[in-house]
Amino acid sequence: MSLDGVLQALADPVRLEMVRRLAAAEDDLPCGGLYEDVAKSTASYHFALLRESGLLEQYVVGNRKFNHLRIAEVEVVLPGVLTSVLAALAPRP
Amino acid sequence: MSLDGVLQALADPVRLEMVRRLAAAEDDLPCGGLYEDVAKSTASYHFALLRESGLLEQYVVGNRKFNHLRIAEVEVVLPGVLTSVLAALAPRP
Repeated sequence: MSLDGVLQALADPVRLEMVRRLAAAEDDLPCGGLYEDVAKSTASYHFALLRESGLLEQYVVGNRKFNHLRIAEVEVVLPGVLTSVLAALAPRP
Repeated sequence: MSLDGVLQALADPVRLEMVRRLAAAEDDLPCGGLYEDVAKSTASYHFALLRESGLLEQYVVGNRKFNHLRIAEVEVVLPGVLTSVLAALAPRP
C-alpha cells in the first residue's frame, strides 16, 4: 500500500462515493449498492483500482460479490489519511 | 476548496513532491527548488493545478516567484487531510 496509490484511488468522484457509502454503512456491502449513473464495466474498473490501492477487499458469497473497506489496515500504514477524507465527506453537524 | 480538488492535486508524484518540499522547508520557496526532472512548462502546469486546488499561493518578489503552502487554510476546511498526507511523506523515526 502506498500513499500515492491511495491518493490516486481516492481522487475520483465515483471511487470516493464507493468508499463513502462503505464507510457510512459500517458494514460490507454488495457492489450494486455502491454506485449509480455508471455502467457495470466502468464500476468494475473503479473497483479494481480501489482493490489495487489496498483500500478495498472483495469476496464472493453465493452469487454476490461483497466489498470490505480496509479502514483499520490503511490506518496502520497511513494514519489519518483515509479517516480525515471520510470525515471531510461526512455531513457537517 | 473542495476535497475532490485537493485529492486530485495531491494524487501526482510531481505535485506531491512540490508540496512535501514546501512543508519540509517550513517557509515559502521559489519555484526552482521544488521540482527536478520535469520541464519548466510541465512544472508550471503542476503549479497551476496546485493553485486551483487551494493548496498553493504564489507571489512575485523582484524577479522570482515564491510559493506558499496554505496548510492553515486547508486545515480549517479539510481537517487532517493535508497534515496526514504530509506525515505519511515524512521519514519514519
